[in-house]
Amino acid sequence: MRKVAVISYGMTKVEKHWRKSLRELFGDAAKVALKDARVRGLDALIVGNMCASDLSDQNNIGALLADYLGVTPSMAYRVEAACGSGGAAVLSAYSAVASGMYDIVMTGGVEKLSDGVGGYTTLSLGKAADADYELFFGSSFVSLNALIMNYYMHTFHTPREAFADFAVLMHKNGARNPYAQLPFEITRETVMESDKIADPITLYDCAPVGDGAAAIILCPLEDAPKYAENFVEIAGIAGATDTINVASRSDLLSLNSTIVAADRAYKMAKLTPSDIDVAEIHDTFTITGALSLEDLGFCEKGKFAKSLEEKAFEHGGVVTVNPSGGLKSRGHPVGATGGYQLAEVTMQLLGKANRMQVPDAEIGLTHNIGGSGSSSFVSILRRAK
Amino acid sequence: MRKVAVISYGMTKVEKHWRKSLRELFGDAAKVALKDARVRGLDALIVGNMCASDLSDQNNIGALLADYLGVTPSMAYRVEAACGSGGAAVLSAYSAVASGMYDIVMTGGVEKLSDGVGGYTTLSLGKAADADYELFFGSSFVSLNALIMNYYMHTFHTPREAFADFAVLMHKNGARNPYAQLPFEITRETVMESDKIADPITLYDCAPVGDGAAAIILCPLEDAPKYAENFVEIAGIAGATDTINVASRSDLLSLNSTIVAADRAYKMAKLTPSDIDVAEIHDTFTITGALSLEDLGFCEKGKFAKSLEEKAFEHGGVVTVNPSGGLKSRGHPVGATGGYQLAEVTMQLLGKANRMQVPDAEIGLTHNIGGSGSSSFVSILRRAK
Repeated sequence: MRKVAVISYGMTKVEKHWRKSLRELFGDAAKVALKDARVRGLDALIVGNMCASDLSDQNNIGALLADYLGVTPSMAYRVEAACGSGGAAVLSAYSAVASGMYDIVMTGGVEKLSDGVGGYTTLSLGKAADADYELFFGSSFVSLNALIMNYYMHTFHTPREAFADFAVLMHKNGARNPYAQLPFEITRETVMESDKIADPITLYDCAPVGDGAAAIILCPLEDAPKYAENFVEIAGIAGATDTINVASRSDLLSLNSTIVAADRAYKMAKLTPSDIDVAEIHDTFTITGALSLEDLGFCEKGKFAKSLEEKAFEHGGVVTVNPSGGLKSRGHPVGATGGYQLAEVTMQLLGKANRMQVPDAEIGLTHNIGGSGSSSFVSILRRAK
Repeated sequence: MRKVAVISYGMTKVEKHWRKSLRELFGDAAKVALKDARVRGLDALIVGNMCASDLSDQNNIGALLADYLGVTPSMAYRVEAACGSGGAAVLSAYSAVASGMYDIVMTGGVEKLSDGVGGYTTLSLGKAADADYELFFGSSFVSLNALIMNYYMHTFHTPREAFADFAVLMHKNGARNPYAQLPFEITRETVMESDKIADPITLYDCAPVGDGAAAIILCPLEDAPKYAENFVEIAGIAGATDTINVASRSDLLSLNSTIVAADRAYKMAKLTPSDIDVAEIHDTFTITGALSLEDLGFCEKGKFAKSLEEKAFEHGGVVTVNPSGGLKSRGHPVGATGGYQLAEVTMQLLGKANRMQVPDAEIGLTHNIGGSGSSSFVSILRRAK
């Protein structure tokens, strides 16, 4: 198996891009990545997206974007695993390069959620759940996660305020991120007093709805010096699934797909959670962030609040979590989120993160979830040169 | 790069499966494949689908199907490249095995088109075209292909009847296929006198709308004897893109994505068109079949009708084309079609095709298109044992 490097990346700011079409949005990110790498073209384009069929009337996005970028007849397809589409696309692109089939592969994702009229974006996002046994009965993502958050607080005697404090940290980080959708600081009270969405989840526990695109270019590690001065190695990468229906889980307070995917990725990289300097994790809701931190091995199960209080997840802590602001503040253009995470961690490891920079970051992790934990994709990146 | 084998396959009959959900339909095909291979589980599930978000309110189909099959925490995702989704999924699964990342991978596809109310299925299928520059202006797939068919007949002085005769051959083949949606013979008059859909295309020039699922299991070629008595090798596999917008093509009468993908696949397999014994090609409309046969190298450009008249594509001809009946008679459950093709050619090479059998078939080809030629995926299979 060939080793794989990330040689460049590009991102758009996450916001409501009313004046950009799907292809223009991805094009903006892709052009930055193409400009920064000394590549002549792409052998393949493997792109994550969830909602374009619903919200932009567009499928066949691989060919659409290959055409727009002028890289036809490159091989192209779209990968979808709900909000984990970006992470799944990166895994698919990794295997395309690792196998020896393709040398220069662009991956990442694009999502335009703003165009959904009325409740249509919420319905479209709900299709990540079980259509027959959850969505049909009126469950939404926020309602399912509200049940989990209540149960977590009850089980581990965790104060509601701890979740608010996680959102505060995310916004503190995101305020330094020029690509963030919500780049401003908030207080505990902002979260506690914001509108109830599904008790106990309030508006500021939730990732916002926005548009964005992120692109990264992969190539064989041994060829990377030809294309870039500095690059990172994907040292580990894995995915895993769990029941799609939340009610069928054996343990509501663990994301088993995350536990398994992380375990596989750590083993592949021959690393452990304590080796990670910087992590971009999937915090759709503050409760999702809490479960993720525990299941990735960054703190004990049920102890998220204690670690947060001890500043374990801040700059200078045990692991710097979401210096981008995470889904909460950077934003969550669903099928692109996994692409953002790879781009952000690459940026950190190359020392190009400016005000977000984690000093001397050498090893980073990305963690992208589809549905309420039915799919997880984890990758571990290492500074190569 | 590891060599890759197909060790088993399963298909459902293509028809209107009103009483089966998406997961049940794929489950029916998957269970046959799982029963025939001596595997204990799946390392990954990479499935093609185009329209489930629109027509079944369901995304996240990788996790959905992994859950239904009871193979969580296997890695899973969906691949989409419009009507080429199945072929793209197989390519993605091939790289997953070839890279060494995964050993036992199920791929193929599932599609339920019958549930689309009113014109909603037509709209959903139209999303394979350029939403902004084709679909928005009222173009449908049939209207775009009608323009191409008119231009073909004008350019090459091809009689309308030749296209009808291709449909007749497809139905003659499909009448022997227990999985076919339209398993009956027709005459030239059936086609010529059927309802006009978009002049000159009539109803019987078109592939029908139906539901179906096909699953195949891949593993490293060297491990295949552990899991199956007989198996085939994927000797070549490739994909390519072209402009998504038909009006932007440099040549309306060539499918450049097919030419390039076929060339890459032939080179990888070190074979030429004359080596192919049996081919399952993408004949959405009779004109698509004609262009495909020419661009795959089975006859000269513009000479499809002459070769058809010389019985080149029949049992006993130069290459037996679509013994399944092809999209025209077997049916075209879009995201599953590429999976059917792999299953059918594997069945042929293993000598298990019963009344469809091409005697002594050793080498077969599959050809799956997304959009009106914006993506093509070609694979070449060889009997291994």
